[in-house]
Amino acid sequence: MNYTLLIVSILIFNTSRQCFVVVKQFRPAVYMCEVERQCPQVFQNQDKENFCHLEDPLPAAVGVTYELCAGIVDKPDLSLEEIAREEVLEECGYCVPVTDLRKITSYRSGVGVTGSRHTLFYAEVTDQMKTGEGGGQPEEGELIEVVEIPLEDYMKFAFDESLPKTPGVILGFVWFQNNIAPKLPKT
Amino acid sequence: MNYTLLIVSILIFNTSRQCFVVVKQFRPAVYMCEVERQCPQVFQNQDKENFCHLEDPLPAAVGVTYELCAGIVDKPDLSLEEIAREEVLEECGYCVPVTDLRKITSYRSGVGVTGSRHTLFYAEVTDQMKTGEGGGQPEEGELIEVVEIPLEDYMKFAFDESLPKTPGVILGFVWFQNNIAPKLPKT
Repeated sequence: MNYTLLIVSILIFNTSRQCFVVVKQFRPAVYMCEVERQCPQVFQNQDKENFCHLEDPLPAAVGVTYELCAGIVDKPDLSLEEIAREEVLEECGYCVPVTDLRKITSYRSGVGVTGSRHTLFYAEVTDQMKTGEGGGQPEEGELIEVVEIPLEDYMKFAFDESLPKTPGVILGFVWFQNNIAPKLPKT
Repeated sequence: MNYTLLIVSILIFNTSRQCFVVVKQFRPAVYMCEVERQCPQVFQNQDKENFCHLEDPLPAAVGVTYELCAGIVDKPDLSLEEIAREEVLEECGYCVPVTDLRKITSYRSGVGVTGSRHTLFYAEVTDQMKTGEGGGQPEEGELIEVVEIPLEDYMKFAFDESLPKTPGVILGFVWFQNNIAPKLPKT
């Protein structure tokens, strides 16, 4: 049994190119939500064949969400910061010193279902820290695309409802606006 | 089958008393997370009797979270605003005109499990709108306590990790700080 106790998420800001680094991921649960909403007949008939034979199956894109780089804390010997460092490297390809991870806060997500405890970190990276492509671990079924959000667009992105995203992305961006943006060097 | 497609959450600000109105709720999933984290032996033994006979069972308080007033959209004839109005009345006891509900944004929560689409609203209420005690529908198993967070404490509350809360609370409070607080009459 596993209640997915702990999750770390990392708001990543690339200071070299003045952009946020987030991930785009296909989420089966989100896709199924959209199937139920847009093609309820799939479930009403309880007809498995029907699902495969839909003339216009929903494109996979409806199941894609923008998310912060994140991961489950599944190595008891590592600190949250060390797990976060690993996720930034695996998913986004940046090698961040553990000491550069700044904790923002923590919260409970999915309180009706999982009750996971998320710890949210902030990390600034540079192009020099980029050591790989990221993309997650395909052998573990991760399909992750690394996406950069330019600094000049981030608040528009945060509140653009046509781009589905997790609350962590919006929360991270708004936190940045209040806590980091005022201290950025003027360009 | 039901993927809990749509959820509405409402950030409520009482202008009469300059406080936020949130709810405090016991969440079994959060409680079980804490049991697994703090009393892993309960699960390791797979011994059901053990659970009941723990000498120091965890207090229910470890499963309580602060949340925005919220509800599942389960009435297809009502708009999101109408559902939100009903939830504010049932859970918090305020009768808010539908036209007073301002949409903030929407997001996807629990992307790994449910993929629900949350729509976040903001509503200002006054003491005159208070028509009941709130508290949810006990006959439906809801155990909801209405809590007021004074305006002077809300940002401290948002980032106080000893008070478990959903990301919606933090996101709502930070949004308020940026969008509403600057326009409040100076006291």
